[in-house]
Amino acid sequence: MSAAAREGPHPAEETGAALHALVAELYPICRSITGDGVRRTLAILDRYLPLTLHEVPTGTQVFDWTVPREWRIREAFIEAADGTRVVDFGVHNLHVVNYSTAVDAVLPLQELRRHIHTLPAQPDLIPYRTSYYEDRWGFCMSHTALAALPEGTYRARIDAEHFEGSLTYGECLLRGETEEEVLLSAHACHPSLANDNCSGMAVLALLAARMAGRRTRLSYRFVFAPGTIGAITWLARNQAHTHRIRHGLIVAGVGDAGAPTYKRSRRGDAPIDRIMAHVLRHQTPGARLRDFSPYGYDERQYCSPGFDLPVGLLQRSPFGEFPEYHTSADDLALVRPEQLAGALALIEAAIEVIEQDRRLRNTLPFCEPQLGRRGLYGALGGDANAAKRNMAMLWLLNQSDGTRSLLDIAERADMPFATIAATAAVLEREGLLVPA
Amino acid sequence: MSAAAREGPHPAEETGAALHALVAELYPICRSITGDGVRRTLAILDRYLPLTLHEVPTGTQVFDWTVPREWRIREAFIEAADGTRVVDFGVHNLHVVNYSTAVDAVLPLQELRRHIHTLPAQPDLIPYRTSYYEDRWGFCMSHTALAALPEGTYRARIDAEHFEGSLTYGECLLRGETEEEVLLSAHACHPSLANDNCSGMAVLALLAARMAGRRTRLSYRFVFAPGTIGAITWLARNQAHTHRIRHGLIVAGVGDAGAPTYKRSRRGDAPIDRIMAHVLRHQTPGARLRDFSPYGYDERQYCSPGFDLPVGLLQRSPFGEFPEYHTSADDLALVRPEQLAGALALIEAAIEVIEQDRRLRNTLPFCEPQLGRRGLYGALGGDANAAKRNMAMLWLLNQSDGTRSLLDIAERADMPFATIAATAAVLEREGLLVPA
Amino acid sequence: MSAAAREGPHPAEETGAALHALVAELYPICRSITGDGVRRTLAILDRYLPLTLHEVPTGTQVFDWTVPREWRIREAFIEAADGTRVVDFGVHNLHVVNYSTAVDAVLPLQELRRHIHTLPAQPDLIPYRTSYYEDRWGFCMSHTALAALPEGTYRARIDAEHFEGSLTYGECLLRGETEEEVLLSAHACHPSLANDNCSGMAVLALLAARMAGRRTRLSYRFVFAPGTIGAITWLARNQAHTHRIRHGLIVAGVGDAGAPTYKRSRRGDAPIDRIMAHVLRHQTPGARLRDFSPYGYDERQYCSPGFDLPVGLLQRSPFGEFPEYHTSADDLALVRPEQLAGALALIEAAIEVIEQDRRLRNTLPFCEPQLGRRGLYGALGGDANAAKRNMAMLWLLNQSDGTRSLLDIAERADMPFATIAATAAVLEREGLLVPA
Repeated sequence: MSAAAREGPHPAEETGAALHALVAELYPICRSITGDGVRRTLAILDRYLPLTLHEVPTGTQVFDWTVPREWRIREAFIEAADGTRVVDFGVHNLHVVNYSTAVDAVLPLQELRRHIHTLPAQPDLIPYRTSYYEDRWGFCMSHTALAALPEGTYRARIDAEHFEGSLTYGECLLRGETEEEVLLSAHACHPSLANDNCSGMAVLALLAARMAGRRTRLSYRFVFAPGTIGAITWLARNQAHTHRIRHGLIVAGVGDAGAPTYKRSRRGDAPIDRIMAHVLRHQTPGARLRDFSPYGYDERQYCSPGFDLPVGLLQRSPFGEFPEYHTSADDLALVRPEQLAGALALIEAAIEVIEQDRRLRNTLPFCEPQLGRRGLYGALGGDANAAKRNMAMLWLLNQSDGTRSLLDIAERADMPFATIAATAAVLEREGLLVPA
Repeated sequence: MSAAAREGPHPAEETGAALHALVAELYPICRSITGDGVRRTLAILDRYLPLTLHEVPTGTQVFDWTVPREWRIREAFIEAADGTRVVDFGVHNLHVVNYSTAVDAVLPLQELRRHIHTLPAQPDLIPYRTSYYEDRWGFCMSHTALAALPEGTYRARIDAEHFEGSLTYGECLLRGETEEEVLLSAHACHPSLANDNCSGMAVLALLAARMAGRRTRLSYRFVFAPGTIGAITWLARNQAHTHRIRHGLIVAGVGDAGAPTYKRSRRGDAPIDRIMAHVLRHQTPGARLRDFSPYGYDERQYCSPGFDLPVGLLQRSPFGEFPEYHTSADDLALVRPEQLAGALALIEAAIEVIEQDRRLRNTLPFCEPQLGRRGLYGALGGDANAAKRNMAMLWLLNQSDGTRSLLDIAERADMPFATIAATAAVLEREGLLVPA
Repeated sequence: MSAAAREGPHPAEETGAALHALVAELYPICRSITGDGVRRTLAILDRYLPLTLHEVPTGTQVFDWTVPREWRIREAFIEAADGTRVVDFGVHNLHVVNYSTAVDAVLPLQELRRHIHTLPAQPDLIPYRTSYYEDRWGFCMSHTALAALPEGTYRARIDAEHFEGSLTYGECLLRGETEEEVLLSAHACHPSLANDNCSGMAVLALLAARMAGRRTRLSYRFVFAPGTIGAITWLARNQAHTHRIRHGLIVAGVGDAGAPTYKRSRRGDAPIDRIMAHVLRHQTPGARLRDFSPYGYDERQYCSPGFDLPVGLLQRSPFGEFPEYHTSADDLALVRPEQLAGALALIEAAIEVIEQDRRLRNTLPFCEPQLGRRGLYGALGGDANAAKRNMAMLWLLNQSDGTRSLLDIAERADMPFATIAATAAVLEREGLLVPA
């Protein structure tokens, strides 16, 4: 797959363009933790991977939580006395507090202000606000626009309803040779925020499409669900099978200009933690590794102490630490094609390690085998890479005593896993390495 | 207790003033490893905590050592031919070599010089010298004063005696719910040196007074004894019970301007070592941690290989590394009220960890509990602290799987133990955490 | 031994001079992986230590390798049309590709160039080239000299032959009290390269001479063999006994101006790795420690996974990283007497640790013994060293609980092993320490 990504004319550019186009298609939809926004989103993703849709009825108990009512919004605006719409949900869906209750009232600006959220420090941006678990209505707008409003009375109208419906999520399992699973999940509940998390959904959808024809050792499960309550619902309905999850990645906010950030699982030393550290180190300068903390995305649920699953988080700029976070500036300009493609390449590289890591045994462990006689010295790749390949051979032969995996060896040799794995394949063909 | 320290008008200032006053009361006494100086010192400390006095007869065998004779000194001076006293024990008790033998002789300055100790590199200071285990007489004076003495004959008189008496030490046990003990000890043998160690005695005496009415889980043993021989004597007489000591601190030189220094126990990873590192890190910028070394104060004896007790040393500027060390400049001006109070606060914070550290278990370990529904988000403390308290809740819920203690969690969360412990109490009240 | 090195007038200078003289005697010989060059070399070394010579016939199978034919060279030159010898093996034996096949042909310069090796980036140096496992003939010369050759035809003559003979190596075992062995080996196949590896051979030969009369606990095996094939041959013939090897050092390139570099064994934490790190740290500022890698000298074979012996590499400037490496500039000027002597001193210091390291037990483990009563304080060495010796005593008494060796204690005390060992001997004489 990563080989495929390197082939053809400008494939990284093509991949980036395809990803950005998908982000752009997902971006305008007004998602929430329930409702048609999620369904329309999953319908788009279904073009890339065959999604099984789940509808979980309002009121269903999921651990300590209850599936909330479904939310439907038709329109929302603030109208001046002269009929001008000074705020309009139709223009930007961040203008309404997500999951807001309905209202239709005329009230003085002074009173209305208590229902309006702005960002005084970023006066031209609309903030993203939610009120999932408290009945409230509200609008969001730029501080500049609010300041420009003359005093007077305004009509505030939010035509929304909460009703007994269901929570929606989608999943897709690409079956491999074993039941061991790799979980790949992106939250699907944020409205028009391009990086958070159209980027994560797009990268996972295209990844699945590229893996579709491939024979893999592990099975790959893709989950697109609303943040927190969606993950909790998925875990409640799949508790009996979570032991199959060998590795997991939450993917969110992977399109901005920042270098990748990997946040370790609660275990801290799970294989996925080592794998991501390795891949980031060799593939992306400036990559950041962070220890687990219980604040963040859905890794919070997967890494709760009852589950303690080996699930980490891949993002670029860490959430909450870039100025566009949770504002209208998280738009299609923030998300860059090459950054989306780079994130996809990272996950594909991690999957290569997951698929190919194994323990081998040197069949001639006493002294070095005579490589020159076998034509192996310099036989691999071009001249420029010959020295590197020779070193990879020496490392593999020296370390393959049955106790060390290819990843162990790549780490000790400080070489990319791909180089070690490709060289291992050559030495296996020569009979110098066999499965341990 | 630490809460009490924060209450009332300027309590840290009051504590500092009280400590400095006690140091000032202890400072003028001429202590030695035996004799009335120690007894007068213990009588003063007894006003703060009910001390049991022990008199161990001269000649008693204590491991490889023998309790030495008691020392009594009445007066000591050097008199010029014209009757002027050029050195006088009555002016400063450092003027006589501590534990000096008696002398009364007229001798030329040239010969007398062999019995006079000065500090040529610190010419205005009187050095502190002892001769415990070798029969010698001697004086200490400033190099400047010695240089100013005209040649000629002088009368050197030390009216002192060594006799079969006893070695004196005092101790006090504040009984807690268990027999497990915390040992807190300060050496009580140095004459007029304010930091070394009137400071340590004063801090421990006031600490005991503040703990007197308190119900504690562990028992707290305070020991005031002469350095080395006193600790050895205590250990010899209490060898059968040292297994009760779960944590220990030697407290010495805690009043100077330096940041605190904690020297680890021989074990290096004893709970007291982790606790002091935690407390210093969160309470005092610039604090120093040092590994155990067999040179120092009475931790040498407690950490001898036969005992290997979990006993560390708390000081400020490390002994031997500040210019006033073991000179007449270690006086009441060197010791600062706020530094004494800060040392007391550190020990009290360590005691809070000792008392409150425990393992809890999250009763809803699968996914996060819904905190909002319980009114817990932001419910703790003011707005400014809400985010911190929320993080403390998330860390506690995530980590409380029965294997990690509150200190473990505070360390992993990089938050002060007090914050974690206070938040744990809230979650226990809600039934979300229970004893593991 | 190291004491002996410090005695007498300028002994380090004398040692250095003796080592350099031996390097100078070995330097002119044209060694290869087989042939008389090795035999003449071993004959010289035999004057220092009684070498057992081994002749292993051509064609002998040694693991994956075969002992190659013997190589004999009589003369080699390139002659211009006017009879001038423009390149002459008699002038410098690097002029011929080592192990080159024979040739006698007249050919145009353009064609001859394909058989001539130069170093364009170091135009005045002759490179060192070999062709052991491929039948080729060739010359090496300075790039400058080649550039100066006028076009035309030249006679290239190499009067050499390969024939069924044998591979030669020499070894010497200095028997100690036990069968446990220390392996010390230097490769003996490079022609006129002074640092690589006349230096290693000279240092080991003189070391053996100095150890000859000494009673040791372990046995010391010195091996001088051609690189790679020689080590493989030795291992193939001694496979049944390699378990006796407790510590091993490959010694190569120890005469240049660089600080010592120790490359750890494959195990990384073998005793020899700790010992060399300790010795280098205390004996040589600027010393470098490097982790094992499978590229290098004969440690590659000793550390192959089937053997995994505790064998490290001692060199000065790491091979391949100094400009003179494998060129005619690796000559007698590159190798310095004091650097050779320093390398010898390092190995001798390591041997002191190997010989003297042991676990002791404090016979008075409860509190400190009263050292003053025994006259031990300040009793050791001069005044300047008294404090250091006192600390060594305190460390030894504190740490000697039967679980820690003298090296463990030296490491924890951060003091040279020699100081700890000398102090331990004093405490053993006093009965304060006994074998654990």
